[in-house]
Amino acid sequence: MMISETSKGKFITMEGIDGAGKSTHLNWLADFFRSRGKTVVVTREPGGTRLGERLRELLLDNYQTMHGETEALLMFAARREHLDKVIVPALDQGNWVISDRFTDASFAYQGGGRGLPIQKLEVLEHWVQGLFQPDLTLYLDVTVELGRQRTSAIKTADRFEKERDEFFQRVRECYLERARKFPQRIRVINANLPLEQVNKSIEETIISFCK
Amino acid sequence: MMISETSKGKFITMEGIDGAGKSTHLNWLADFFRSRGKTVVVTREPGGTRLGERLRELLLDNYQTMHGETEALLMFAARREHLDKVIVPALDQGNWVISDRFTDASFAYQGGGRGLPIQKLEVLEHWVQGLFQPDLTLYLDVTVELGRQRTSAIKTADRFEKERDEFFQRVRECYLERARKFPQRIRVINANLPLEQVNKSIEETIISFCK
Ligand SMILES: Nc1ncnc2c1ncn2[C@@H]1O[C@H](COP(=O)(O)OP(=O)(O)OP(=O)(O)O)[C@@H](O)[C@H]1O
Ligand SMILES: Nc1ncnc2c1ncn2[C@@H]1O[C@H](COP(=O)(O)OP(=O)(O)OP(=O)(O)O)[C@@H](O)[C@H]1O
Ligand SMILES: [Mg+2]
Ligand SMILES: [Mg+2]
Repeated sequence: MMISETSKGKFITMEGIDGAGKSTHLNWLADFFRSRGKTVVVTREPGGTRLGERLRELLLDNYQTMHGETEALLMFAARREHLDKVIVPALDQGNWVISDRFTDASFAYQGGGRGLPIQKLEVLEHWVQGLFQPDLTLYLDVTVELGRQRTSAIKTADRFEKERDEFFQRVRECYLERARKFPQRIRVINANLPLEQVNKSIEETIISFCK
Repeated sequence: MMISETSKGKFITMEGIDGAGKSTHLNWLADFFRSRGKTVVVTREPGGTRLGERLRELLLDNYQTMHGETEALLMFAARREHLDKVIVPALDQGNWVISDRFTDASFAYQGGGRGLPIQKLEVLEHWVQGLFQPDLTLYLDVTVELGRQRTSAIKTADRFEKERDEFFQRVRECYLERARKFPQRIRVINANLPLEQVNKSIEETIISFCK
């Protein structure tokens, strides 16, 4: 679990509700680092491993109901595997890892959205990852309305996406709260702006991070 | 999660390595209680719910590898759902619930077998079930050799069953250790004896428990 001291890779996570632009900008970001000679591993949560993708299927399945605490345990189970098989080995080899969602999403969705106590989630966080944290988290902040507008046209809603606006409002508030709590790690990007402007502010953030 | 004070049902779990005789005696036990007018719910772990059975498939799949901690998280995720959907509602209705394995198996297999620290498992136990415990646990103690002899003829080995004898030795030792730690709740049944004698000692244990 421990990342060796000689590790030179960085772990960057993208967070935000659906339609914030995570996938769009993640691809740009990977290219940005590759063009600077880094080896980049792009991954996602829940998922990233064979087991994780099988769990993702369960978690997003509209026909599968589950208790909020079960959902949290499954998210962290997928994450445990993800850390063991993908994230930690890649960082140990000096690669840069960019993940579409990570632990902040568990706080935002299972905590903010489903209402689990933050302290219960912190217990699982510590159980699974000890003190390990992303080096940088880009939180793409978008209003619920705009996020919904952007995604509703392109895909059918999964078990999370079919939740009501109030749910995503709570998810968004929880993300913003975490950004205030961890201002060093989590950078808030205004993702309500046009694509090029969002991209510009991500670029600025990344360049200042790399200095 | 809390079981109401007026609950009259009892929760009995059957534990032991493969071939100990859990399934055999569980069916006898259910009939025993039914003949005394109880409504009995028979269930199993991992499993017992639709989600739990899907997780059981993952957990027993010979082609699926996973970290020991991932395995523990998945076991407890299935258990959280099992408690929420099956065990607690049945007990609240005054039914008797008999489960083929429960949390002692997580300590024995993921703790004893896979080597996870007992204290880490206690954190998950508390996270998922608070202070909730079975009213009675029958631990059917059989030697690894005898257990293997009894099962090898009747089925192909799953992801756990294909482990070596040393693994099951540690599982058995952990079960025995827990029985010493919780002598009130866990009763050790010598399951190396012929079927009728094992049955007789289960019957005696149950009759004294019901008094
Ligand atoms: N700033 C923006 N302005 C306009 N459209 C955008 C902007 N950002 C993203 N989009 C568009 O919105 C849609 C959703 O973007 P994207 O898939 O990147 O979001 P996401 O955060 O990955 O969502 P999900 O969580 O559903 O995967 C895409 O069609 C994308 O082109
Ligand atoms: N005391 C016993 N003496 C002889 N045979 C037994 C005894 N107990 C069980 N058996 C036989 O051993 C086999 C395995 O028993 P059973 O399926 O009940 O074990 P189990 O604990 O449920 O195992 P598993 O964990 O693999 O489900 C069955 O064929 C059963 O009839
Ligand atoms: Mg996306
Ligand atoms: Mg059995």
